[in-house]
Amino acid sequence: MQAKLLSYIAGFLDGDGCIMAQLVRRKDYKYGYQIRLSIVFYQKEQHIKFLEWLKAKLRCGYIRKRNDKMAEYAIVGKKCVQEILEELLPYLQLKRDLAKLVLEIAKMPDKPTAKEFLKYARMVDFSSKYTYSKKRTKTKAVVEEYFKKHEILPP
Amino acid sequence: MQAKLLSYIAGFLDGDGCIMAQLVRRKDYKYGYQIRLSIVFYQKEQHIKFLEWLKAKLRCGYIRKRNDKMAEYAIVGKKCVQEILEELLPYLQLKRDLAKLVLEIAKMPDKPTAKEFLKYARMVDFSSKYTYSKKRTKTKAVVEEYFKKHEILPP
Repeated sequence: MQAKLLSYIAGFLDGDGCIMAQLVRRKDYKYGYQIRLSIVFYQKEQHIKFLEWLKAKLRCGYIRKRNDKMAEYAIVGKKCVQEILEELLPYLQLKRDLAKLVLEIAKMPDKPTAKEFLKYARMVDFSSKYTYSKKRTKTKAVVEEYFKKHEILPP
Repeated sequence: MQAKLLSYIAGFLDGDGCIMAQLVRRKDYKYGYQIRLSIVFYQKEQHIKFLEWLKAKLRCGYIRKRNDKMAEYAIVGKKCVQEILEELLPYLQLKRDLAKLVLEIAKMPDKPTAKEFLKYARMVDFSSKYTYSKKRTKTKAVVEEYFKKHEILPP
């Protein structure tokens, strides 16, 4: 993508987008939790064309209409988030440190050991400092507790 | 300014900025009202350095801390708003039509006739369709009423 376009998208992401790292409960996963990375843009439904334009440029993710007359463009998953953040990184201002952290989290190996998983879960916790999230219930401590209970790691 | 920088600022303005045209009551003004044009950016107070960076680039306006831990960077007045919007216009996406309208309003002569003033007041009304403002009380109709009451225009 062109520098001008990347600049625009970086500005828009700094202004109105979300970069997120989250721990998500997955009963069928080896460690009971997934580390989910995402980039999300929200707009009033009447601006859905803008989100479609953005999606055509970023070539990842999906758009959905919500029930509250808002539309949401979500890019979920390591590969897409990594590719996009790497391109946007030089142009980001407000969310550059968060993007760097999420790029670090994206380096988690595909089959991490339990210890490795906890290391990355800790980085996910840390990312909430950038997003001002106060309601997180799925934290590294919760995953650690789960590991002990299921004897994934010794207590 | 560089295209890359203008792109970034346009993206940020599209995402999180406000472009506004308002009618403001001014008891000492010939027509009792002023047409005020402004561009405003809001950020949490801890991001005030970002607003200062933006201000250094745009070389207009002022920053103030509010009481709610937010900081506000406001660019007020025809000259500044006009200069900045003209530069950003080619890069704006979501707010391009609003920017165009505000640039039209900025063409109001310095000493408009009462009729001319009402014409521009009507354009100000129209701008609220872009900003989803529902609480406006100062409209062209209110100015018109004032003009009749003060015999600025024949009833």
